[in-house]
Amino acid sequence: MRSEFDFIHHIKKSYGLGRIGDDCAVLPKDSKTDLLITADMLVEDVDFRIGWTTPEFLGHKALAVSLSDIAAMGGQPTFAMLSLGVPERLWKSDFLDRFYAGWHGLARDFGVELVGGDVSRVPEKFVIDSIVLGEVERGRAIPRSGAKPGDKIYVTGSLGGAAGGLKLLESGTRPDQDLRQTVREMIERQLCPAPRLGVSSQLPASAMIDLSDGLSSDLGHICEASGAGAVIFAEQIPIDIRLDSIFTSLDEKLHLALDGGEDFELLFTADPKKNLPAEFADLTCIGEITANVGRMELIRDGVASEMKPKGFQHFRSN
Amino acid sequence: MRSEFDFIHHIKKSYGLGRIGDDCAVLPKDSKTDLLITADMLVEDVDFRIGWTTPEFLGHKALAVSLSDIAAMGGQPTFAMLSLGVPERLWKSDFLDRFYAGWHGLARDFGVELVGGDVSRVPEKFVIDSIVLGEVERGRAIPRSGAKPGDKIYVTGSLGGAAGGLKLLESGTRPDQDLRQTVREMIERQLCPAPRLGVSSQLPASAMIDLSDGLSSDLGHICEASGAGAVIFAEQIPIDIRLDSIFTSLDEKLHLALDGGEDFELLFTADPKKNLPAEFADLTCIGEITANVGRMELIRDGVASEMKPKGFQHFRSN
Repeated sequence: MRSEFDFIHHIKKSYGLGRIGDDCAVLPKDSKTDLLITADMLVEDVDFRIGWTTPEFLGHKALAVSLSDIAAMGGQPTFAMLSLGVPERLWKSDFLDRFYAGWHGLARDFGVELVGGDVSRVPEKFVIDSIVLGEVERGRAIPRSGAKPGDKIYVTGSLGGAAGGLKLLESGTRPDQDLRQTVREMIERQLCPAPRLGVSSQLPASAMIDLSDGLSSDLGHICEASGAGAVIFAEQIPIDIRLDSIFTSLDEKLHLALDGGEDFELLFTADPKKNLPAEFADLTCIGEITANVGRMELIRDGVASEMKPKGFQHFRSN
Repeated sequence: MRSEFDFIHHIKKSYGLGRIGDDCAVLPKDSKTDLLITADMLVEDVDFRIGWTTPEFLGHKALAVSLSDIAAMGGQPTFAMLSLGVPERLWKSDFLDRFYAGWHGLARDFGVELVGGDVSRVPEKFVIDSIVLGEVERGRAIPRSGAKPGDKIYVTGSLGGAAGGLKLLESGTRPDQDLRQTVREMIERQLCPAPRLGVSSQLPASAMIDLSDGLSSDLGHICEASGAGAVIFAEQIPIDIRLDSIFTSLDEKLHLALDGGEDFELLFTADPKKNLPAEFADLTCIGEITANVGRMELIRDGVASEMKPKGFQHFRSN
């Protein structure tokens, strides 16, 4: 019997659904521009819990995950659609007004215009399908498949914070409580992520992906698409320093940074001869692409071990 | 407390979701072409019942409803995305393989390429979000708002068959049974509709919409968007002749043709001085646009009565 993971992989691969190949579909627009398009379905109690977030954060995140896909292609977002399946309990409150306020706040920041979508009743669980269109200079969309042996591997920002926030939510912390600053920041990292637009279109990247599944999984996607391998140096991984206030074990923090998902930072590779834009202090080199096809290694304290994709399952294992 | 209808109308109107304005969003593509995009969410036990259809029919219909939106703008479809929320009971069978076979059969007929989407687990009910992109000559998309007093009102094909098919399904008829030809055709009209592409881009229409909600509702949308009224002649409505084999009452047949939805025929208005393409024998003039803003009248046996939008609620009233 197929497992859920096998099934989703099979469906995506067989039918061209989802992002087996890349974060967005790239379609011809005009002589100078390609059109990007991405869809992300978020399901209550699978991808989020209504009681763990706020309607505003949920609206923000529904758009942020798709904007992050546009960022990962080196593009800029333009238009969006939103299809909502709404259970009766939610349409009888101000939930959707607040959800939309969160969505629209982020859309305004990036000049994204809502042009359509659909609304339906659903029997039970709230379902969101977030669709975002974007643009990129013709032929310049950054694929997952362009990494070459010798390319350096970089990440933006810091890693593990969103997974740390999820741990806090799982242990009962909620955004409407009176919280310490670091705790609040970490759960907001999980509930209200910031897509890395702007940076991404200026990077001399040979391959790029957004960190939604987690570093070990998403690097695996780049290696698979590029027919390459990778070495990562554990000491160079920019672990979110806020994790220090909750987790004392370095092993645990490293696990969250490697395998925790939803940081929505960018992971990219670049030819070492290329200069990175000096204004982006927020980039860290964490390793190198190798010719060792399909093998990812983690070097820690000078010792190499195999790194397997262990993407955070989020609520999916429930 | 808001009703479901009020809620959906409020959300669509407030937030620009759905098709309050038109069947598709129209976006600039290049100097000669506009891009069309539409999304339709179909939810198990709201928009369809798994036990009443086949996986192939459901896949076909999921695409057909969106192709019909492209047709209603006078456009041609190009690319599609499909986001699926799949409950465990379905991914452990061949359901999705068969669903996709139905989807792809129709996509092939119209040269539509699947370029992406998403797949997620859902706790209970199967959810489909069908997204279709299309093209139309720049500035030539046919809106709902272009109807002028004096324009003739036309429909393609015949009306009421899909609603008749739904009645049969509600009374226990199923597509896998041994059925009379007319009965089979009628339930397939409901379960496996044919979008009116091809015809639509050659019509000299001033306003157009596809008949998804039903003639009385969809004509209401044209009148509202155009700031006009309408007169319909009951005797001219092309009632599906297959209804004769099931319903003896003319009142009932007329009700299905006026208020039954999902025939996915086209309803359009045209200046009477314009010639309709002679090769389309399948067009019927059923009335005329008036200056009587917001009022729709039905003339039957020489007597006028007010016609109110009574769109088929499908399963939505459950």
